Amino acid sequence: MMLKLVIIGGGSSYTPEIIEGMIDRHDQFPVTEIALVDIEKGKQKLDVISRLAKRMVKKSGKDITITASLDRRNALKNADFVTSQIRVGGLKAREKDERIPLSYGALGQETNGAGGIFKALRTIPVLLEVSKDMAELCPNAWLINFTNPAGMVTEALLKYGSHKRVIGVCNIPFNMRTGVAEILGCQTEDVEIEFIGLNHFVFGRRVLVKGVDYTSIVIERLKDPSNQYSPANIVSEGWSSTFLSSFMMLPNPYHSYYFKGAEMLEKSLKEYWENGTRAEVVQQVEEELFKKYDDKELTEKPTELEKRGGAFYSDAACNVMTSIYTNKGDIQTVNVQNNGTISDLPNDAVIETNAVMGGEGPRPISIGTLPLSIRGIIQLMKNMEELVIEAAVKGDRERLYQALVINPLVREETLAKDLMEELLDAHKEDLPQFYQQV
Amino acid sequence: MMLKLVIIGGGSSYTPEIIEGMIDRHDQFPVTEIALVDIEKGKQKLDVISRLAKRMVKKSGKDITITASLDRRNALKNADFVTSQIRVGGLKAREKDERIPLSYGALGQETNGAGGIFKALRTIPVLLEVSKDMAELCPNAWLINFTNPAGMVTEALLKYGSHKRVIGVCNIPFNMRTGVAEILGCQTEDVEIEFIGLNHFVFGRRVLVKGVDYTSIVIERLKDPSNQYSPANIVSEGWSSTFLSSFMMLPNPYHSYYFKGAEMLEKSLKEYWENGTRAEVVQQVEEELFKKYDDKELTEKPTELEKRGGAFYSDAACNVMTSIYTNKGDIQTVNVQNNGTISDLPNDAVIETNAVMGGEGPRPISIGTLPLSIRGIIQLMKNMEELVIEAAVKGDRERLYQALVINPLVREETLAKDLMEELLDAHKEDLPQFYQQV
Amino acid sequence: MMLKLVIIGGGSSYTPEIIEGMIDRHDQFPVTEIALVDIEKGKQKLDVISRLAKRMVKKSGKDITITASLDRRNALKNADFVTSQIRVGGLKAREKDERIPLSYGALGQETNGAGGIFKALRTIPVLLEVSKDMAELCPNAWLINFTNPAGMVTEALLKYGSHKRVIGVCNIPFNMRTGVAEILGCQTEDVEIEFIGLNHFVFGRRVLVKGVDYTSIVIERLKDPSNQYSPANIVSEGWSSTFLSSFMMLPNPYHSYYFKGAEMLEKSLKEYWENGTRAEVVQQVEEELFKKYDDKELTEKPTELEKRGGAFYSDAACNVMTSIYTNKGDIQTVNVQNNGTISDLPNDAVIETNAVMGGEGPRPISIGTLPLSIRGIIQLMKNMEELVIEAAVKGDRERLYQALVINPLVREETLAKDLMEELLDAHKEDLPQFYQQV
Amino acid sequence: MMLKLVIIGGGSSYTPEIIEGMIDRHDQFPVTEIALVDIEKGKQKLDVISRLAKRMVKKSGKDITITASLDRRNALKNADFVTSQIRVGGLKAREKDERIPLSYGALGQETNGAGGIFKALRTIPVLLEVSKDMAELCPNAWLINFTNPAGMVTEALLKYGSHKRVIGVCNIPFNMRTGVAEILGCQTEDVEIEFIGLNHFVFGRRVLVKGVDYTSIVIERLKDPSNQYSPANIVSEGWSSTFLSSFMMLPNPYHSYYFKGAEMLEKSLKEYWENGTRAEVVQQVEEELFKKYDDKELTEKPTELEKRGGAFYSDAACNVMTSIYTNKGDIQTVNVQNNGTISDLPNDAVIETNAVMGGEGPRPISIGTLPLSIRGIIQLMKNMEELVIEAAVKGDRERLYQALVINPLVREETLAKDLMEELLDAHKEDLPQFYQQV
Repeated sequence: MMLKLVIIGGGSSYTPEIIEGMIDRHDQFPVTEIALVDIEKGKQKLDVISRLAKRMVKKSGKDITITASLDRRNALKNADFVTSQIRVGGLKAREKDERIPLSYGALGQETNGAGGIFKALRTIPVLLEVSKDMAELCPNAWLINFTNPAGMVTEALLKYGSHKRVIGVCNIPFNMRTGVAEILGCQTEDVEIEFIGLNHFVFGRRVLVKGVDYTSIVIERLKDPSNQYSPANIVSEGWSSTFLSSFMMLPNPYHSYYFKGAEMLEKSLKEYWENGTRAEVVQQVEEELFKKYDDKELTEKPTELEKRGGAFYSDAACNVMTSIYTNKGDIQTVNVQNNGTISDLPNDAVIETNAVMGGEGPRPISIGTLPLSIRGIIQLMKNMEELVIEAAVKGDRERLYQALVINPLVREETLAKDLMEELLDAHKEDLPQFYQQV
Repeated sequence: MMLKLVIIGGGSSYTPEIIEGMIDRHDQFPVTEIALVDIEKGKQKLDVISRLAKRMVKKSGKDITITASLDRRNALKNADFVTSQIRVGGLKAREKDERIPLSYGALGQETNGAGGIFKALRTIPVLLEVSKDMAELCPNAWLINFTNPAGMVTEALLKYGSHKRVIGVCNIPFNMRTGVAEILGCQTEDVEIEFIGLNHFVFGRRVLVKGVDYTSIVIERLKDPSNQYSPANIVSEGWSSTFLSSFMMLPNPYHSYYFKGAEMLEKSLKEYWENGTRAEVVQQVEEELFKKYDDKELTEKPTELEKRGGAFYSDAACNVMTSIYTNKGDIQTVNVQNNGTISDLPNDAVIETNAVMGGEGPRPISIGTLPLSIRGIIQLMKNMEELVIEAAVKGDRERLYQALVINPLVREETLAKDLMEELLDAHKEDLPQFYQQV
Repeated sequence: MMLKLVIIGGGSSYTPEIIEGMIDRHDQFPVTEIALVDIEKGKQKLDVISRLAKRMVKKSGKDITITASLDRRNALKNADFVTSQIRVGGLKAREKDERIPLSYGALGQETNGAGGIFKALRTIPVLLEVSKDMAELCPNAWLINFTNPAGMVTEALLKYGSHKRVIGVCNIPFNMRTGVAEILGCQTEDVEIEFIGLNHFVFGRRVLVKGVDYTSIVIERLKDPSNQYSPANIVSEGWSSTFLSSFMMLPNPYHSYYFKGAEMLEKSLKEYWENGTRAEVVQQVEEELFKKYDDKELTEKPTELEKRGGAFYSDAACNVMTSIYTNKGDIQTVNVQNNGTISDLPNDAVIETNAVMGGEGPRPISIGTLPLSIRGIIQLMKNMEELVIEAAVKGDRERLYQALVINPLVREETLAKDLMEELLDAHKEDLPQFYQQV
Repeated sequence: MMLKLVIIGGGSSYTPEIIEGMIDRHDQFPVTEIALVDIEKGKQKLDVISRLAKRMVKKSGKDITITASLDRRNALKNADFVTSQIRVGGLKAREKDERIPLSYGALGQETNGAGGIFKALRTIPVLLEVSKDMAELCPNAWLINFTNPAGMVTEALLKYGSHKRVIGVCNIPFNMRTGVAEILGCQTEDVEIEFIGLNHFVFGRRVLVKGVDYTSIVIERLKDPSNQYSPANIVSEGWSSTFLSSFMMLPNPYHSYYFKGAEMLEKSLKEYWENGTRAEVVQQVEEELFKKYDDKELTEKPTELEKRGGAFYSDAACNVMTSIYTNKGDIQTVNVQNNGTISDLPNDAVIETNAVMGGEGPRPISIGTLPLSIRGIIQLMKNMEELVIEAAVKGDRERLYQALVINPLVREETLAKDLMEELLDAHKEDLPQFYQQV
């Protein structure tokens, strides 16, 4: 039996993670073909990755065919699963997303800040094309999207795309589970966190270890700064006791940008002056990584990849695919359409939530109303996302401006205007929807 | 380690089912004590059941202590699980619930019809007392209620009771799964039905077999009258092709009372004239059962019990308890507070729904909006239930009258009035809340 | 300044009511042209009405031009207001709507019963055409629809039509106000009833006289059967004290069909056997009316028209138009899109509700949640209406069948099937959407 | 006939406004007694106001008795209307509300910022006592609250108070109408603005002049900075064209604190360094005002009062009272319980909205869903208010901290903590609920 996975953005430095994930899970998820797809501009990287992937497979002894191609439509034919990890405009674009806001003394924040907003504007139209192709060429395949901002991108695909089998994944929830397991000294598999909220704005409402509530114990331990969980790419200073005790919920690392914004801004500015933007740092890391990848002796994922920030990305995606394929019915944290799961958010909003993962895809566990302490801020962030999505799809500057004004990292009406104009201009060639002839 | 189960209404003819269930599951659910509790009036039956239970346990070789008592409060101490299967007023009361409506040419229907309404009025105040005792004496114990009308009773307990760890169970969903498995020729464990709605008014929206959608196949097969699933106590004539194809959902057997009411009424009247009410038939069955139970040679549940109508009751309840105890995380169909699971029903309404069953109890899978074809009728039935619950708790005749007028099996304003008055009068001694001095 | 009113279905026997209304209100609403439009089949009647209208205007001395035409599109040009009072298939069709259900021992009920359902199926596609024409030819004009079932028709126009300035009116609320004023011995203008619900299924929650609450006084007086208000076409027997005291709301006359169905059926059958269907009776009344209308001496609305059943129709419509034209800001009862006015109904549902009527059209007064006693039955009726509307627009038999099964006047799955098939067949030529080639 | 008005906080410098309002409206609202009530600490001011009021009434020739008292309970007896305009802790407290945040480089903002939060904490418990007294002593009287933060205070009274006839008023909407009328060169009475949102966070969605939509014209004119409307106490710099065109709604002057926060902070700091806090400025203005008030020759409201910032306060309150008394049925902008008016906010939230004002109080005009552009920010502000109210009623520090973190003018978790601690300490004696022995 054939089982085909297509990786859109196959030339990404993250791809070896997925290859490894597929090899490790081959007994349960016997993939027969992995098709790497990329665009012309990424051909060179694609070749490096493709060769590394082949070496990795060979070493594993698994029966997996690796193919590489620039012809996306051809690759999508007969796909069973498709993953997406693209970066429209490349790291150069990200650099602008970070540098321009910083030049105004504001955080760019490539998830939900002005940077993330412009990343969404660039990405959504491209993935809507993928969605259209999938509806035509592999209508039963699942698209596992981990292109950021994953929440907004998934919502755009589910609202405006032709293909409805789309699941957004992010490594943050998985990361937090692992972090909590470390703090408690137990196995990650035994930890369940009740996640509520949005991608990069998710809270952990309850921690269960083998069905027993450990929330207050974890909260207590988090007060010790040495117990912070955080991904490699966010230097977190931890949360005050007051914050942790008042909210009695686990913040995610990205919450620092909102509730510790002054600190984070100061830190970002300092780093920027010393090393340039994070994008520039990453660019260098990537160059080194690709040099490693190109080494013919390398037959497995190099440990350096983990420094890149996306640890567990592949786990999140590979677990989703495996559970669908095997009708496993375990609980995973994914980005799916709300459809009433959270009563306080629109039905067609995408939320990051726990779902039973089986043969028919994710079925979210009902949440009901949001806790009073976070209801409004989550509603605000979702509203901001909806405005961005509409702006991205329609090239609508009014919606874009509204999103920026509403965004807590911008908020000032003049700053919003300045950022909008400079960023639109800087990304002009990747934002055709805003520059179309009418 | 102690693991204590208390059975309220332990003298019920159904009790041997639970005893058997506990014996069968003893490896996973190592109950150490089963305390049977009943009221003075039921002492004789309690003794018979208690002796049978002891013989069953002895034969099984399991280490379970059986106790029997009329002192409920004492029995509840240290309970881990409590089940409830009481019948306030006994079968004599049920006889009135059936006979009086029939005398007006109306279906009594002991679940959601006038009969069920009065059963709720009698039962709710008694179980609110149990709830109060549990909050005091065994605050961590789970109450598994299968006293009918299970949906209304559970809602009343969750809205007005002191004890919040309450789960309602009914054998109908389990029955339907079994029936569907038979129709498809597969294992019950492999069948999942997405249930939506209310107790005795639940629909099966989707049938999955190992994660694959078999809904339309099952619907097609149900058009063949020989393929009907139905509990022993409802003689079903099957559904028309038009009905099945239009709704594309699995009706439950009790839907016959609503959508095939004329037929059911005719049948009930005929049966009534021939054999008396169903209550009277059951009374006879029970007498024979208890004769069997009292046979000292009997050391297991007699097969005759299944004719009684409640097959799989014990399975539903025992499965719930086992999954909570073992933090299993499987999907079970239970009656729980809506809390946003179905967007079109109040948050504090109890619904019958699929839930992930683990150490912290049931967590329902989100449903969202109801299908357009059944939204209104489910909203109507829920509204009717809410009116009954308020009437039961407050002894409020206005609410009771409203419930009867709104009920599709009554609807006529004059019939509602006549039924209300005659039934209130007939059940006077079991309905003190309607006859209190103010 | 020009002010043009177009009457779609201008040949209706009701038209003289509107002509009179326009003459009476000419000081506030100085209409300059009334264009009567009808179809070929109704040409003769149109001529009679047109001549009568001209005589009425002449006598009044007002400066109003009356025109008559079969060319709807031409008439609609430059319209400021359009009223609709059509009967697709004529009284012959209504006769079938009544006779066929009665032959099955069921009430046809030309508003929300099976009869009303089929009237909706015939009417909606025709008025969607009018809506399309209006959007093109008179985009700023208001369509005042009083074609029955007015609620469903208005909802269909607002959901599926191109033209959004649509208001549904019905004489029942106005009638009830007048009736209440009589009961209290005060002026109709001083009575405000808080209406909640749906067209032909509306309740009066509160009666205010000059801002003072008289609800319980009115309820008390309604217990005296001589105090019933009811339109000429419904013989009402009044409501029991129990009903009135329990619900503490004013039922509308059509509620008799639901809550006093047995009585109404008996009466309808008796009448049918004696005089034929109501449609046949009306047919005769109409013939006589038209004879009168054709009398050259007649220069005003004959009093016999009031027997016809639609008293106050013109008042409801004329008041709406006048208040819009003069930006009056008074409170009127109309059928408009819910848009959150009643929290328990869909946003796009049409409800019958009190609204502030001004230059921008109706703005409904917020209601919030429905009273518990009627919430479910109103949700059910609305659901039924939604199914009918979808059936009407798409020619969808599944939706039609669902509507019939859900309808409390049908409910039996077999009856639903039989009625559906026989009525579809009987109305075949007026229901092209169900008989299209695919 | 007696018609008694009680003014809680009668010694306020605003009282002459109400007295004038009552005199001006005496034909429609023939008040017979105005009872001024204050606390011991305010006795001196009360005496000054009382004497001035008497002189004003005398000059008017109206038959109104002015009384002054420190015995609130006695004054409330037989009241028909009660207004509240108190300042717990006086201007000294306000000074702290402003100075402490400014010392952290943050805006205090006495409406919805940290300052307003602490004003709410001090005020709510006191007015809950008034509510209790009213329920006992004048259960039919209406409480017209214009004590700030008026929205939060009204919500607290409606959620937790015994007396439910409470309406919150603010002069901002009235102000905006007047401002728009000036901009358009028309009469204020002819302007209607569709207000949506919350007190001090309200937007004008649509401007109607005699029923005709002038929204885009007003928006266009507002782009000219000379056309800004703003109360005397807010120096507004106007809004950018981008902001006005994107949102297409009228911001209220307090929106400057949110969307032009940097500017406003700079300005506030500058003013603070030059003249001290706004509280200190006001203190001086008040002293001068009271000197004027005490002038025996003064027999009318001095024009200087308008500089004080509260112009039109009395108009808003007096109009509400007059419309209730006369069952007028006009549209006024008030703070009332949402109850479904805005679908996106809780039913028990208080909103600032247009309502039909008649004998039974305000009946809000349905709004439905909020415009996408402002939905989230309004939901956030409401959430913040709910947290404050709970904190105020229960003395709950967790809720207070959450409110501060969520508040867009605070947001930083450390700042929230510092502000909370310093402000709680500074207001200790006016916040007994946070310092009770447990």
